[in-house]
Amino acid sequence: MPQSLIGLRKAELDTPVLCLDRQRFERNIRVMLETVHAGGKAWRPHAKGHKTPAIAWREIGEGAAGITCAKVGEAEVFAAAGIHNILIANVIAGERKAERLAALCRWSSPIICCDHYAQAEPIAASCRRLGVTCRVLVDINIGMNRTGIRPGTDALELGQAIDKLDGLELIGIMGYEGHLLKVADPGEKLRQIREAIGILELSRDSFQNSGLRCDIVSAGGTGSVAITSQCPAVTELQAGGGVFGDPMYVQQCGLEGVEPALTVLATVVSRPALDRAVLDAGRKTTNPDIQAPVVKDHPDAEVVSLSAEHCTLKLGPQSQELRIGDQVELIVGYADFTTPLHDEFYVFHGDRLEAIWPIWARGRLQ
Amino acid sequence: MPQSLIGLRKAELDTPVLCLDRQRFERNIRVMLETVHAGGKAWRPHAKGHKTPAIAWREIGEGAAGITCAKVGEAEVFAAAGIHNILIANVIAGERKAERLAALCRWSSPIICCDHYAQAEPIAASCRRLGVTCRVLVDINIGMNRTGIRPGTDALELGQAIDKLDGLELIGIMGYEGHLLKVADPGEKLRQIREAIGILELSRDSFQNSGLRCDIVSAGGTGSVAITSQCPAVTELQAGGGVFGDPMYVQQCGLEGVEPALTVLATVVSRPALDRAVLDAGRKTTNPDIQAPVVKDHPDAEVVSLSAEHCTLKLGPQSQELRIGDQVELIVGYADFTTPLHDEFYVFHGDRLEAIWPIWARGRLQ
Repeated sequence: MPQSLIGLRKAELDTPVLCLDRQRFERNIRVMLETVHAGGKAWRPHAKGHKTPAIAWREIGEGAAGITCAKVGEAEVFAAAGIHNILIANVIAGERKAERLAALCRWSSPIICCDHYAQAEPIAASCRRLGVTCRVLVDINIGMNRTGIRPGTDALELGQAIDKLDGLELIGIMGYEGHLLKVADPGEKLRQIREAIGILELSRDSFQNSGLRCDIVSAGGTGSVAITSQCPAVTELQAGGGVFGDPMYVQQCGLEGVEPALTVLATVVSRPALDRAVLDAGRKTTNPDIQAPVVKDHPDAEVVSLSAEHCTLKLGPQSQELRIGDQVELIVGYADFTTPLHDEFYVFHGDRLEAIWPIWARGRLQ
Repeated sequence: MPQSLIGLRKAELDTPVLCLDRQRFERNIRVMLETVHAGGKAWRPHAKGHKTPAIAWREIGEGAAGITCAKVGEAEVFAAAGIHNILIANVIAGERKAERLAALCRWSSPIICCDHYAQAEPIAASCRRLGVTCRVLVDINIGMNRTGIRPGTDALELGQAIDKLDGLELIGIMGYEGHLLKVADPGEKLRQIREAIGILELSRDSFQNSGLRCDIVSAGGTGSVAITSQCPAVTELQAGGGVFGDPMYVQQCGLEGVEPALTVLATVVSRPALDRAVLDAGRKTTNPDIQAPVVKDHPDAEVVSLSAEHCTLKLGPQSQELRIGDQVELIVGYADFTTPLHDEFYVFHGDRLEAIWPIWARGRLQ
């Protein structure tokens, strides 16, 4: 980590680098937090989009109640950085993975999700061997049709079975309305999300009526946070991506109040035609999947293609002044798939490099 | 690096992991080498798709003359691992980058490309300051319209200008027929590639007739290797991706003789419906861009969606026996965008883990 670069200006840096505008990022954190708190919920932002303990600690410093992870390996990293209130919002399987989770429970306190007894029982067995207890949410399919058990009797019976397993402690349920984040019509989006979260509410009632604990009802992505935060049954929100203010969330999901905070600083390496500039940042630097990057401060320059290590811009009359060696910033379209390509965030206050934050959970795929 | 895992079988490993079948990989190396040697050329395989010194050394061990890189930072890694005959098949710009390249020239011997005097002059200046000489190829646009100077007078004049610069040593030219890799009709593909390489041949003649050195004429991707290897003007081929036998090259570019050697070993973590299984390997484990992954050994299982950390399979009657905890292998569609997501290759002989090779140039984006 080249900490010796701190204090330099962008023009003094080699490229490409992943740049975080700290002021915008912190304003976005407050916007997300206020949205969740306005609904009276706790905020447990997902860390999969940043994988960075320094960022998680900023979120917690502002008021987040804990964090969400996608992988046991991510939880290990954040726990090692001192964060222990971690929901692993995912199901896991395999003997090695169960052993790892149980080992983590010896020195941290993760919460895991299950949608079948075939996951729960081996985890419980590993926990018993190590003399620990792992907290569990039942993952319920609320219409997304990825993981998640069928609501109703199936979910209740799974909850009852988990509740009986030594080594596990049932504490609630989760669901994800991920299939509804991009519903275009606001009224329709509201209706459909309320309906999906209604399934969680019925599940909570059925759990509690049967004497099962349901302290946590977890849901909510960044693309639905404004609506899901207002659904009474939900106790906490996972929405994590909004802190970067990605154009994807603003343009495709209608997220309001945030501004893009994440860019790739690149250099013009070739100017082979009047209307063409080539940058030193391709698909291995910024992943255009879901939402392509946008050129910052050059409104008539457009990203027309990205290969592995090149970004080709089509230049309009105003951007044709760009010369070989000039720097250009690309606004990252969707941070989630871009941050794992990098080892660190370069954190700026305006034009000045203030910090370099290691993306310690990068590559923690297990 | 968990070297203590060596000797284990796949069933004993946690997932997901990136798996390389060493026997297939080595057969693919020989196929690529034989194709290039059949045309009487040298093979300088591109390393951007693997970023792994252990792999580059296997290629050199089999007969590769050197390697190709996309970034100065990659070249630094391979040089540190003892490989010094490196073509950086890319143009670079910016004072910091020129300084890095010159510093590399003090202890290694890279070759860089230029398509404009505005790149060449600052590199030459950095080299003079450090008392080194950097070898250069002129990058010529042979129809791909990404980087590359216009052939003809422009290219010749750039060659002459570089030849006069102290600190640089002009040794040849390169071009890339990357826009022709997927031409479907074999006859048309042959004709168009010959035409594109014909531009390089004319450029070489014009360089040599003007007394400029043109020892190296570099071209050729994996998708065109069979044709470009037979073009008389070319002296060496960059084709690197074929060593993994990616389905992309076989299906989209008609590459023959190779077999897929790269897979992601994953686990079924959820079985929420009769025809649906969910694996623990999503877009952060295998990038489906360019070519989606394919399920190995389960012909009636199909990848229907990939989110960040989940792969959803649609199961036919024969694969419906898959249970939570079972392992499934996904054949990587296009290795180039997948390997940078990982820290290491797990190298197998059959079912047995033989080695773990660090992907040391992962994230070397500068």
